[in-house]
Amino acid sequence: MADTNLNLEVRLEQLEDHRRSIDNLDSALLAILAERFRLTEKIGRSKAAAGVEPMDAERERTQLERFRVIASTHGLDVDVAVDVMARIIEHVKARHEALQRAR
Amino acid sequence: MADTNLNLEVRLEQLEDHRRSIDNLDSALLAILAERFRLTEKIGRSKAAAGVEPMDAERERTQLERFRVIASTHGLDVDVAVDVMARIIEHVKARHEALQRAR
Repeated sequence: MADTNLNLEVRLEQLEDHRRSIDNLDSALLAILAERFRLTEKIGRSKAAAGVEPMDAERERTQLERFRVIASTHGLDVDVAVDVMARIIEHVKARHEALQRAR
Repeated sequence: MADTNLNLEVRLEQLEDHRRSIDNLDSALLAILAERFRLTEKIGRSKAAAGVEPMDAERERTQLERFRVIASTHGLDVDVAVDVMARIIEHVKARHEALQRAR
């Protein structure tokens, strides 16, 4: 029973330790996302100014293929990686379309 | 007209340049995501082994509040940030539930 309590304590300490790491990784994720959206904002404004289509199917296909390769190299579930990145790109598209409409 | 072609050329060069930056940022995002899922996988296995609930509403609330603060500090749209991070957490939850069921 003492052993079980000790195990529980070790588990809780590990959980806290992992959560601190996750919080740090999330700070990094958000900082990178901020810079990514700063760049896509510039692209969106430039495309809207030039009257160019906000979507580029060929570019998107290339990106998704790259995500699969990188995820697989890093031991990250490919479907999860593609789903999360696709979500990011959806937000970019919505923003680019809004910029186009606001011309 | 020559001026317009020059503008177009500059725009295309800038677009290519931004896209290279985005590709590099995406590599970083995926590497961080891989490490994040490596940690949540450990947490999920530990919780499943201990028979602890995979979800922790209090932790999730704290995380979402942190995301809002960090996004806002970095000039990142808060709703976009929260939506993308919530998507990541949804994948973690689904995985933790699967680990729990597989006990």
